[in-house]
Amino acid sequence: MTHPLFDKHRAKLQAALDAIGSRAYWSAYAETPNPKIYGETAASAGKAAYDAHLGQRFALQQPGVQAWAGGERSPYGVTLDVQYPVCDPQALIDAAQASMPAWQAVGAQGRTGICVEMLDRLNQHSFEIAHAVMMTTGQGWMMAFQAGAAHAQDRGLEAVAYAYREQSFVPAECVWEKPQGKNPALRMQKHFEIVGRGVAVVVGCSTFPTWNTYPGLFAALATGNAVIVKPHEQAILPAAISVKILRDVLSEAGLNPDLVSLCVPANQQTTQALVTHSAVKSVDFTGGSAFGNWLIEHCRQAQVYAELAGVNTVVVDSTDAYQAMLRNVAFSLSLYSGQMCTTSQLLLVPADGIATDEGHKSYQQVCADLGAAIDSALAKPEVALAVLGAIQSPATVARIALANSGALGTVVHASHALQNPDFPGATVHTPALLACDADAEALYMEERFGPITFIVKVADTAAAVALAERVVRTHGALTLGVYSTQSTVVDAMTRASWNAKVALSINLTGGVFVNQSSAFSDFHGTGGNPAANASYCDSAFVANRFRVVQRRYHI
Amino acid sequence: MTHPLFDKHRAKLQAALDAIGSRAYWSAYAETPNPKIYGETAASAGKAAYDAHLGQRFALQQPGVQAWAGGERSPYGVTLDVQYPVCDPQALIDAAQASMPAWQAVGAQGRTGICVEMLDRLNQHSFEIAHAVMMTTGQGWMMAFQAGAAHAQDRGLEAVAYAYREQSFVPAECVWEKPQGKNPALRMQKHFEIVGRGVAVVVGCSTFPTWNTYPGLFAALATGNAVIVKPHEQAILPAAISVKILRDVLSEAGLNPDLVSLCVPANQQTTQALVTHSAVKSVDFTGGSAFGNWLIEHCRQAQVYAELAGVNTVVVDSTDAYQAMLRNVAFSLSLYSGQMCTTSQLLLVPADGIATDEGHKSYQQVCADLGAAIDSALAKPEVALAVLGAIQSPATVARIALANSGALGTVVHASHALQNPDFPGATVHTPALLACDADAEALYMEERFGPITFIVKVADTAAAVALAERVVRTHGALTLGVYSTQSTVVDAMTRASWNAKVALSINLTGGVFVNQSSAFSDFHGTGGNPAANASYCDSAFVANRFRVVQRRYHI
Repeated sequence: MTHPLFDKHRAKLQAALDAIGSRAYWSAYAETPNPKIYGETAASAGKAAYDAHLGQRFALQQPGVQAWAGGERSPYGVTLDVQYPVCDPQALIDAAQASMPAWQAVGAQGRTGICVEMLDRLNQHSFEIAHAVMMTTGQGWMMAFQAGAAHAQDRGLEAVAYAYREQSFVPAECVWEKPQGKNPALRMQKHFEIVGRGVAVVVGCSTFPTWNTYPGLFAALATGNAVIVKPHEQAILPAAISVKILRDVLSEAGLNPDLVSLCVPANQQTTQALVTHSAVKSVDFTGGSAFGNWLIEHCRQAQVYAELAGVNTVVVDSTDAYQAMLRNVAFSLSLYSGQMCTTSQLLLVPADGIATDEGHKSYQQVCADLGAAIDSALAKPEVALAVLGAIQSPATVARIALANSGALGTVVHASHALQNPDFPGATVHTPALLACDADAEALYMEERFGPITFIVKVADTAAAVALAERVVRTHGALTLGVYSTQSTVVDAMTRASWNAKVALSINLTGGVFVNQSSAFSDFHGTGGNPAANASYCDSAFVANRFRVVQRRYHI
Repeated sequence: MTHPLFDKHRAKLQAALDAIGSRAYWSAYAETPNPKIYGETAASAGKAAYDAHLGQRFALQQPGVQAWAGGERSPYGVTLDVQYPVCDPQALIDAAQASMPAWQAVGAQGRTGICVEMLDRLNQHSFEIAHAVMMTTGQGWMMAFQAGAAHAQDRGLEAVAYAYREQSFVPAECVWEKPQGKNPALRMQKHFEIVGRGVAVVVGCSTFPTWNTYPGLFAALATGNAVIVKPHEQAILPAAISVKILRDVLSEAGLNPDLVSLCVPANQQTTQALVTHSAVKSVDFTGGSAFGNWLIEHCRQAQVYAELAGVNTVVVDSTDAYQAMLRNVAFSLSLYSGQMCTTSQLLLVPADGIATDEGHKSYQQVCADLGAAIDSALAKPEVALAVLGAIQSPATVARIALANSGALGTVVHASHALQNPDFPGATVHTPALLACDADAEALYMEERFGPITFIVKVADTAAAVALAERVVRTHGALTLGVYSTQSTVVDAMTRASWNAKVALSINLTGGVFVNQSSAFSDFHGTGGNPAANASYCDSAFVANRFRVVQRRYHI
């Protein structure tokens, strides 16, 4: 007897399983906010649903409510004024633990079906969630809809598919019959029970509060664990809406909704006590290296899946499509003002310049041309505002000012502020390009999060390849790029990418950008360099979130 | 073009894959030293090969030889006097790293084929290895042949099968084609390269130098890593023979034999420097909790797969086969003098006694009957010596003396020494049974490795179930047992086994013993309680030993 929600979503699951098998293109959830797909009223209804949260208490019916808190600061300068329940973490943990035996009893198929139902339901709330993502993170609308809704849902489904595949390998039972020569065989009945490790905590980030939260959330949930979502204090609303939807689905399925809860902690000490609680057996984290490494150091009772800071790098050796290369790089640096963990921070360019289809270009010319390409990409104000979004954090604004001051290198293209007529209070800044020599490592050899890119002058391409590998091995990276017409250079970069364990994008000149990764096809992070100890999504991301407990007896 | 050794071993691999899919009975390597299987001359040739090592330098052609060392102390009192090369660990690491790119290039299929070839070759050396295991560990001959040779090879193959399955899910390449409405689709070629995490170190133990070493060794090797085997100082020879065989296979396959090497460290500081070396990315360990937890604490650069101490427990509630129960428990306590990480240390018996098919038995009667059952099992001297083997460690001898003194509880059945006519210097001791009350936790609530079992008097069965769960959650266990005719008790123990994440054996009265786990069927350890953070063998044991590095470009 299969679970009705497993039956309902069997075709979608199978398509997802096929996709993770081939890693070819597939998507479950439409990335365009098309009324023909989402319904004619979806956009207005979603906006209204988002608006209805503003100025209100966000009710979740969670146990242990001690207070209400909120006060997210929108990069668009608008006021959200949503209040969230501050719950006693011990009450959340107690409720989570109490809910787990029934979740275990549902079995892998039932959990899978319920998780896909949750994702479908999240998809139905895509407009509402996209507005919440846009307003809390500063993403432009289209990115908020894509990355915040559809792509995040795809990443969640990807984790569910991996979790299902691994769990499906565990037989529920078997008869073990060992021959004993002329004597009767030894016969035993064995049962194999999948048991979640324990309560999971998923710590969200300020820039991608759903995209970086759903993989860990659904990986933990699908493998039999309760999940407590601890959002970033500036991006609570997307998490709260998501948690509410998941709790609704659980209730409708006859399960305890406290299997998934939202933890808005009273203070940082509460967060630290939560993640180091003996009942917490996994922590998923996206964010800065300081807290990430604190988690790895202190959460010894838990598996920690961490995506941390990195220094993404592109080696520019030569190109047969100079303008297309410039356009591609310029767009990738501009997108969400470089506030993606995958945005390139370093462009390594040989001191003697590069060969192109437009002839030789000096180092200085490349710098100038990239600056012009950024200006060109952002020439239309409405396009610029849509692409750039707004700056999420005052710390990033401060870093931009530091970059503009020349303290981090020669300013070859200054960042400047833009006004957004729709959101007069929005904090909008264009990318800054800085030039420096390769030996000025103190300037560029650490993450400078935001729209700040260093065009590093290296001795030659060989030095660039070596430096790129060293940067990634030492400081980590989620992305590595190369532009070259020489197969020897591409081969050398390929070897460097293996040595440093980082995904490599080669000669991107079209509609794919180094900072974009596509669910079901691109692995996001390898888990093999300091930028991340796990990958979205592979077997290792799910296989250690559950354990198999067997029992056996003679028959 | 597949690798010839993959083709050669395809059928065996498929059978292993089927076995891990069903977890039903299967074995690749015959556990009986039968001349019809192993050849008429295998026994004598294997003994001669073992003898030929004695008093000699064990040549391995490894780099960086600084000295020769050895001096294993045989529990059988014989002199081995084998000398092993002491190599500079940095030289071993350098050679290991140098050998990895070619190993990566062989690909998952090629690595799998070569690993199975290695296991077949180990199997051909089963008699030689069994003698080495017997003489270094004190195991009896039959156990040495089974656990030291055939079963260890099966566990190695099991790891290879899991590693192959996970790697086979990673497509080598794909075409990614994303529709763009009326515009041409975005098309990219993507490649996915499996890259080992880095140099693996496998730290062996003194009692099962092959059985507990092969899973990590082959899991790491099959997933693309070089492996340095660091054997226990008292059980080097089985590891040295194994490493030599693997190096021979590598050389024959045209690969650098330094992919697998033996590290006999000059001192403990050398070991610590080795396992914390930045190039070492995984450490497999079996042994005491002190060093195991030191590894987990200090090897932050590596994945640590650790099997540590535990307190294995059996709850005795009732039985409909009293004599068979006593025989089964007595044999399991006697086997290899209780020097198995799976041997029960605690028998929890209600103060009011138990119901049996022979009527009610008081707590005292159970104690006495179990002592008598041990005496009966060991009544024939030749059987006793074969079952008990010899005591591996002077520390265990000291613990036996402590148990006999009454300091650990009331002695209900004292251990006594036996003489072995074949090995006059052998250290042989029968099991000790101690009685204590449940509240005397200081006596029994820690691992007392060796033939020392506590029959703990508990208030009632419910208290026994609760205590068993608490013991395992707190101190860890690889095995849990229950004897009961009541389904409510078995159900309660089943829930306890889920809560504590430990394998449960129910009413074992025949030819299967709680301390035995069968490769391809029984998971050895769950990885979910303090006795082990990993399991032989599941996906989690292999999936994080390699990473996937992708590259992509427009087509």
